[in-house]
Amino acid sequence: MMSHSDVKKAVLAYSGGLDTSIILKWLQDTYHCEVVTFTADLGQGDEVEDARAKAKAGGVKSIYIEDMREEFVRDYVFPMFRANAIYEGEYLLGTSIARPLISKRMIEIANAEGADAVSHGATGKGNDQVRFEFGFYALKPDVKVIAPWREWDLVSREDMLNYAEKHGIPVERKREGSKSPYSMDANLLHISYEGYDLEDPWCEPSEEMWRWSVSPEAAPDVPEYVELSYKGGDIVAINGVAMTPAQVLTELNRLGGKHGIGRIDIVENRYVGMKSRGCYETPGGTIMLKAHRAIESLTVDREAAHLKDELMPRYAKLVYNGYWFAAEREMLQQAIDASQATVNGDVRLKLYKGNVMVVGRRSDQSMFDERLCTFEDDQGAYDQKDAGGFIKLNALRLRMRALAGK
Amino acid sequence: MMSHSDVKKAVLAYSGGLDTSIILKWLQDTYHCEVVTFTADLGQGDEVEDARAKAKAGGVKSIYIEDMREEFVRDYVFPMFRANAIYEGEYLLGTSIARPLISKRMIEIANAEGADAVSHGATGKGNDQVRFEFGFYALKPDVKVIAPWREWDLVSREDMLNYAEKHGIPVERKREGSKSPYSMDANLLHISYEGYDLEDPWCEPSEEMWRWSVSPEAAPDVPEYVELSYKGGDIVAINGVAMTPAQVLTELNRLGGKHGIGRIDIVENRYVGMKSRGCYETPGGTIMLKAHRAIESLTVDREAAHLKDELMPRYAKLVYNGYWFAAEREMLQQAIDASQATVNGDVRLKLYKGNVMVVGRRSDQSMFDERLCTFEDDQGAYDQKDAGGFIKLNALRLRMRALAGK
Amino acid sequence: MMSHSDVKKAVLAYSGGLDTSIILKWLQDTYHCEVVTFTADLGQGDEVEDARAKAKAGGVKSIYIEDMREEFVRDYVFPMFRANAIYEGEYLLGTSIARPLISKRMIEIANAEGADAVSHGATGKGNDQVRFEFGFYALKPDVKVIAPWREWDLVSREDMLNYAEKHGIPVERKREGSKSPYSMDANLLHISYEGYDLEDPWCEPSEEMWRWSVSPEAAPDVPEYVELSYKGGDIVAINGVAMTPAQVLTELNRLGGKHGIGRIDIVENRYVGMKSRGCYETPGGTIMLKAHRAIESLTVDREAAHLKDELMPRYAKLVYNGYWFAAEREMLQQAIDASQATVNGDVRLKLYKGNVMVVGRRSDQSMFDERLCTFEDDQGAYDQKDAGGFIKLNALRLRMRALAGK
Amino acid sequence: MMSHSDVKKAVLAYSGGLDTSIILKWLQDTYHCEVVTFTADLGQGDEVEDARAKAKAGGVKSIYIEDMREEFVRDYVFPMFRANAIYEGEYLLGTSIARPLISKRMIEIANAEGADAVSHGATGKGNDQVRFEFGFYALKPDVKVIAPWREWDLVSREDMLNYAEKHGIPVERKREGSKSPYSMDANLLHISYEGYDLEDPWCEPSEEMWRWSVSPEAAPDVPEYVELSYKGGDIVAINGVAMTPAQVLTELNRLGGKHGIGRIDIVENRYVGMKSRGCYETPGGTIMLKAHRAIESLTVDREAAHLKDELMPRYAKLVYNGYWFAAEREMLQQAIDASQATVNGDVRLKLYKGNVMVVGRRSDQSMFDERLCTFEDDQGAYDQKDAGGFIKLNALRLRMRALAGK
Repeated sequence: MMSHSDVKKAVLAYSGGLDTSIILKWLQDTYHCEVVTFTADLGQGDEVEDARAKAKAGGVKSIYIEDMREEFVRDYVFPMFRANAIYEGEYLLGTSIARPLISKRMIEIANAEGADAVSHGATGKGNDQVRFEFGFYALKPDVKVIAPWREWDLVSREDMLNYAEKHGIPVERKREGSKSPYSMDANLLHISYEGYDLEDPWCEPSEEMWRWSVSPEAAPDVPEYVELSYKGGDIVAINGVAMTPAQVLTELNRLGGKHGIGRIDIVENRYVGMKSRGCYETPGGTIMLKAHRAIESLTVDREAAHLKDELMPRYAKLVYNGYWFAAEREMLQQAIDASQATVNGDVRLKLYKGNVMVVGRRSDQSMFDERLCTFEDDQGAYDQKDAGGFIKLNALRLRMRALAGK
Repeated sequence: MMSHSDVKKAVLAYSGGLDTSIILKWLQDTYHCEVVTFTADLGQGDEVEDARAKAKAGGVKSIYIEDMREEFVRDYVFPMFRANAIYEGEYLLGTSIARPLISKRMIEIANAEGADAVSHGATGKGNDQVRFEFGFYALKPDVKVIAPWREWDLVSREDMLNYAEKHGIPVERKREGSKSPYSMDANLLHISYEGYDLEDPWCEPSEEMWRWSVSPEAAPDVPEYVELSYKGGDIVAINGVAMTPAQVLTELNRLGGKHGIGRIDIVENRYVGMKSRGCYETPGGTIMLKAHRAIESLTVDREAAHLKDELMPRYAKLVYNGYWFAAEREMLQQAIDASQATVNGDVRLKLYKGNVMVVGRRSDQSMFDERLCTFEDDQGAYDQKDAGGFIKLNALRLRMRALAGK
Repeated sequence: MMSHSDVKKAVLAYSGGLDTSIILKWLQDTYHCEVVTFTADLGQGDEVEDARAKAKAGGVKSIYIEDMREEFVRDYVFPMFRANAIYEGEYLLGTSIARPLISKRMIEIANAEGADAVSHGATGKGNDQVRFEFGFYALKPDVKVIAPWREWDLVSREDMLNYAEKHGIPVERKREGSKSPYSMDANLLHISYEGYDLEDPWCEPSEEMWRWSVSPEAAPDVPEYVELSYKGGDIVAINGVAMTPAQVLTELNRLGGKHGIGRIDIVENRYVGMKSRGCYETPGGTIMLKAHRAIESLTVDREAAHLKDELMPRYAKLVYNGYWFAAEREMLQQAIDASQATVNGDVRLKLYKGNVMVVGRRSDQSMFDERLCTFEDDQGAYDQKDAGGFIKLNALRLRMRALAGK
Repeated sequence: MMSHSDVKKAVLAYSGGLDTSIILKWLQDTYHCEVVTFTADLGQGDEVEDARAKAKAGGVKSIYIEDMREEFVRDYVFPMFRANAIYEGEYLLGTSIARPLISKRMIEIANAEGADAVSHGATGKGNDQVRFEFGFYALKPDVKVIAPWREWDLVSREDMLNYAEKHGIPVERKREGSKSPYSMDANLLHISYEGYDLEDPWCEPSEEMWRWSVSPEAAPDVPEYVELSYKGGDIVAINGVAMTPAQVLTELNRLGGKHGIGRIDIVENRYVGMKSRGCYETPGGTIMLKAHRAIESLTVDREAAHLKDELMPRYAKLVYNGYWFAAEREMLQQAIDASQATVNGDVRLKLYKGNVMVVGRRSDQSMFDERLCTFEDDQGAYDQKDAGGFIKLNALRLRMRALAGK
């Protein structure tokens, strides 16, 4: 840990909420440093401009508030979906994928502002501290990282409120009173819920918890069809209308949320060692995963697809654990991206009460040839006798093993 | 290829349908050998005893008709589900997993009967010929395998009907006339559809095609909860009622089918080289996969679970490609099974219109400890300062790389 | 198999030796097609120009004889060595890596010549037929491939000599008589031996068999030091002298051969199913592998290096099996190459009687920092207390597993 | 970190040397606890009984001194060599594999003695602290671990000597004066060297450093042949003489050391984050690795062998990082061991000046069949025409990809 007097200027990931407002004050008082705030709009649904007045009131001179939605989807979400990434069979990595972008921008700001430190509001028990700090260290190896939750002695909500009151930090009592009992995180890809009654993994979450989607029960009784167009593995149009990456995800969130799509309830393994319960809504992402696999099924070579499937859990784990800017994630991305040049075409989906059903896929670069697979006369496209040799040679080692007495 | 006169006695996988009845006759006429028929009840839903009269009429002296449902689920389906096996992200391997059992039993019969050959009715374009024959060769390396579809010159349905008529093989005209236009395969795990209008991957299958499940739209408007109990990674009870493996799968098929669960529509890569469109109904299996992941999430160590996830695509591919009796499948199974001793406990699910929602999981051997993950005061169970050292050491290489100029 | 009359013009991989001279005649007689010959100098040590007169004598109008050594090393050998590729723990893939280049050039010639077929002299039992033909099909999917050894009825050396005599193909009796009893293949990377007394895997090969290197016993009694310089993972200079790729490999072959380096004697698994005994001399390649790992040890990030190690066996298998032009090999190459940008610097080696000993490595982009690893006072570069947190968090899951009763 | 007063009794890994004698005293003074010492003979070559008098003089009442060589080789070294484990392409894991056994025995002693803590003398910069402590936590999750090097303020050799003098701990001045300048570790598998002039990776180690083997230059001028017999993947006899595991390794160390075999000089990646230079002598292990691959080449199925090769780097990394008692290591071991039942037979080796040359291998369960691979007439064992079908079907996807325009 650095000495407090070493820090001259720190860039803080600032939401404008109570916690990061307390951190702002705590940094100023503890490290006696100038604090630069950074607030990103990643589609979390809050009004990021609200942070400006609060930062000003907190004595901040350099205030960065930026809409990063397009960069987020284009450079982080889309590349990750090219990998069909799922962590532990269920989780679409909505929180994980947002962290590296924030780290990257904070380091850029630190460099521009001549700041020597960065700080964030993630706790010492979660994955986000790891993700933020790996980003910081990978991009600015000599940066000083300040993680107040691992340093200070505020351990309960009451401690926090007392600190705020003592230092004149405005607490929106009403909001504090009515706020969700869950620990939540949101961005254009998802919203997450942890804590409170979810800490009992046998307890079913109440319908009130969910914010972004209706329940399957409450979804329309009539299915809706949607057509997605792919280019190079990414969605470029919905129902024939060209869209930017952030527009794509926004529209798919609308469609998925309307049809009760994308809720999951899991127990996951955190990188810091424990198992934890989380619920997630990823309406658009759930649609994207299903559709991407469908367009790949026509346009990606079998062994390329299988290699992707074998590398995927490792890729997903790297993203989950915060290694976006690590050499091995970049290597895997190169391999994955090399498979996507042919991933062009359309997927037709049927959305209905929580279900995403693929009902059609087509591509000018399809490797599907109905003459090869038909059970009808194929006019010589495939010689069935070839299969005999194929089987005999592949079985040779099986036979040798049996003869050797296993 | 062996000379026709080499074969003395052949065991034929015999369904009693038109195709294998033609094969029976063709074998007798072409190879001049005695044919032993084997008909297995794997839960496909046909009355297997019907095959007895037909085989007798065909001049067969040794007729084997066996109910193998328990062995099928206990020794093949359940071990495969311990691996959470999915082929190409979607397919639950319903056809693939039934083939090795049939091969194994046929070889046992061949040995008991002193037969030197085995035969099956799979075509030369599909995966099943491979799966059958790998099983044959692995278990009886000197066996002669006769695959009529790769030998004879009957290439269309019309050829088949002509052959049947010419040789007095009874054709159930009515059934032929009213039968599904799809190529289908069924067992206790699933039913599959290929061919006909599915050969256009842009064409949505008609509702009439599906046989085992209602559509999500037609499923009940009221959700149903079900509780599954696991022991050693396998389901041993449903809603508190102890059941055998086949009973478990039968009941889950009933539940899943009722709630519109387990339909998929995919383009898959066959081992023999082409892409092919297939639709599948796997109601019980779909529930099992979701539930198994849920009980594992509480009871399997993180890195064991991740190792399983990384090995899974390879395991699934081996099953798909027919390598059940290969050394490498056995090695992977050993690894997988070694992770399942602690997989005990209950999973609570909500079934609704195509959705399988996990709403609770509990276990006496849970590795979940709410004191570790709580955002509230944990009374010292976890020292947040440890995270600082954890991050610093894991980031050391990231920093060294950055310093080395990437 | 195509009808013989379908073929108009065929490009033949032609060495000028007896076997391919017979094939040349056989193609002309059997397929009644024009034959274009292609002879490549890959460093095999034969005088390739000798093939010209023989081809002319055989009636060939279009004769291609090309020195491909630079392209071979630059585009095939070097990329493969970036992967540290070894097949089955021992084999440096000397034969495998030469095949795709030959296939590629033959297809280019076929396109330029308007040829519709290609042909080669590899037998139906080996890997080379597979490697050649995968290259052909991947680069010209509609090409006709003629593999005489799988078609004709010449099954013994005597049959071959009779055929030659009958058709007036000159047999160098003397050479036939004095030639090595082994089946051999050579290029700039290696020379291989199969067959004859090697078919007994308990039999030690005689010293007379080896052609390229002295035995360790016969090597100089004085060690020799050599310094290799790397740029982007490839060797660009030896002992400070800049060299082209083929020059590098030629010089390392000289050095390795002089010091008895690079002989192996193995039983390997062929792709077509059987085990086979082979002996190989790879003097330069053996030095390159050792040195490349040494320069990587300083300049590649830990997890990037480990990912390379985990992908390597799969990469090596793809090369061995002939999948150079497959999507999955290209994907892996992208991943591997992405790790090599920092692989710059020098390696110092000591060569002595079969041993390649790394005695030094240095790089401007070294990630080695002696302050971090020293057991002496490191002046604060590393805080040992961080290790406590690192261990505690990594051990958390081990403890939870033990508490859950394993 | 626990409070000092919490500890009642601690088991210390005690060598009897200066460092652990200082730790013994420091534990008594700092934690005011009873200390139990444990000294294991793992073949390091020291006289372990010397530790008894020193421990007694230090006031220790419970002194454990045990010969664990057989258990070490049988339960740790041999299982690891079944995997052909190599870390980062070079390192045979000699130090890594000894740690879990020490941890296991210490926890057994702690349980027997009613001790609540364990302690070791590994520093905070190395891998051994991690390996020891993962073992402790996995086997006794509530144990208190005391790592003095991470706690105390003795940071230089001078500090250590001052502490010893002040507390009356006898320093063998002569030994201190004449001792190797390297940090060393030894057991029956290897001896390692780190630090001093090795901290410059361009510096060649001096011949004086090496302790266990002669240099290749100094090795006999006459080769020596040796025959190893395998059962279930482990060596059970040398030159026809049955031996226990520890006897096998002792004899192979003698042979290897005599012939200059098994020295390596590498830069490796530590788990705690930095790169470090190490030199190792592993004479017997180097022979074992080569021989094990040779006997496997005859007796293990191709795909089983390839699966082993793909899993190996991960297995080696787990051993290196200290995860011997982790679920995932146990899973991999199950898979590996499942491949070894057929690994029976003999390997003949030629040892000469640093070289281990395989010159023969044989087995009653050999899967090698010379009829299959011969280039001579095989009397129908293999039908070359089968290769045509094999290639055509495997190439189908390559052709489809080319047709789809890549």
